[in-house]
Amino acid sequence: MFILSSPSGAGKTTIARRLLDEDGKIAMSVSVTTRQPRPGEVDGKDYQFVDQPTFQRMVDDGEMLEWAEVFGNNYGTPKAHIKAGLKAGQDFLFDIDWQGTQQLYQRMETDVVRVFLLPPSIDALEGRLRNRNTDSDTVIDGRMARARSEISHWDGYDFVVVNDNIDECFGKVKTILEAERMRRARQTGLVDFTRGLMR
Amino acid sequence: MFILSSPSGAGKTTIARRLLDEDGKIAMSVSVTTRQPRPGEVDGKDYQFVDQPTFQRMVDDGEMLEWAEVFGNNYGTPKAHIKAGLKAGQDFLFDIDWQGTQQLYQRMETDVVRVFLLPPSIDALEGRLRNRNTDSDTVIDGRMARARSEISHWDGYDFVVVNDNIDECFGKVKTILEAERMRRARQTGLVDFTRGLMR
Repeated sequence: MFILSSPSGAGKTTIARRLLDEDGKIAMSVSVTTRQPRPGEVDGKDYQFVDQPTFQRMVDDGEMLEWAEVFGNNYGTPKAHIKAGLKAGQDFLFDIDWQGTQQLYQRMETDVVRVFLLPPSIDALEGRLRNRNTDSDTVIDGRMARARSEISHWDGYDFVVVNDNIDECFGKVKTILEAERMRRARQTGLVDFTRGLMR
Repeated sequence: MFILSSPSGAGKTTIARRLLDEDGKIAMSVSVTTRQPRPGEVDGKDYQFVDQPTFQRMVDDGEMLEWAEVFGNNYGTPKAHIKAGLKAGQDFLFDIDWQGTQQLYQRMETDVVRVFLLPPSIDALEGRLRNRNTDSDTVIDGRMARARSEISHWDGYDFVVVNDNIDECFGKVKTILEAERMRRARQTGLVDFTRGLMR
């Protein structure tokens, strides 16, 4: 479980998409949310869009690996799909915030890699948020406040990468993913392989 | 402290030398040893060659970060140089065996990355040992026994890389080194940087 978190506007979505495209082995964990789709977002790909009662039922039935409320909307990760995938050796990419990361880490510590992206400066972050042009000033101010609050949780992550240049940042995130796959504890078959070497 | 261990003949020395050349930031930790120099080995570069009483005095005076006896010869890492370097932000590469790794890890846990290289097969390993042509059959048999014993400690390492192809293996080891440098706990300046972002 490879977690990518960052304040909104720090390039996380771009990095995540490119990782999915170029890595070929990692799959996106699709979150369930009660918020309205933004223009261009596809149900079942970007998010699974559900209403509040459905979300609440999933939480009550213990179907969520983690969930959080952000600006009155709920976001969560459905458990069944991830657990089955992990068992079959599938890697998953999570685009979740610090609350979700904390919950996931507490539940599945050994199998989680937590990466936090930071903007090069607060001006760069605000610039990127404004360039989206999809939200009002009030929404942007709220999002800046939330960005600062998200940044304050940087120390709950294993790796920190500053996104000064999108290509470099992507390269660094990919390096982390590739290195973490070489961890002894994540490699299957080593017990038999080393036994063969010592025969 | 980046530790590279492997059974003798698995390509560790080649990988270590290339890492020193191409990385440019990591320095070799030069071990002290009581064994005789092999042809081409340079005192103070490959090893610091000392006699047994000198080695024993260094151990007695607590000057060793780790030390071990292999085939009647002693090998150790002098403490002062490493400690001063680490404090100044210097990364060190250690070419040591499982005993040294265990001692180093117990003493400096958070700052150690342990990488173990495995040969693709036991025949490949024996082939490489024979190709050196510097040792008798008895020495090679002893070294094969020691290789098996070294391999048995693969599970005391953070990362395991099979050296099937020297270029690929080098790339993997370099990936691990680069990723580990991005660990939050190893990056200096993040406290101030994030404070600046939240101002």
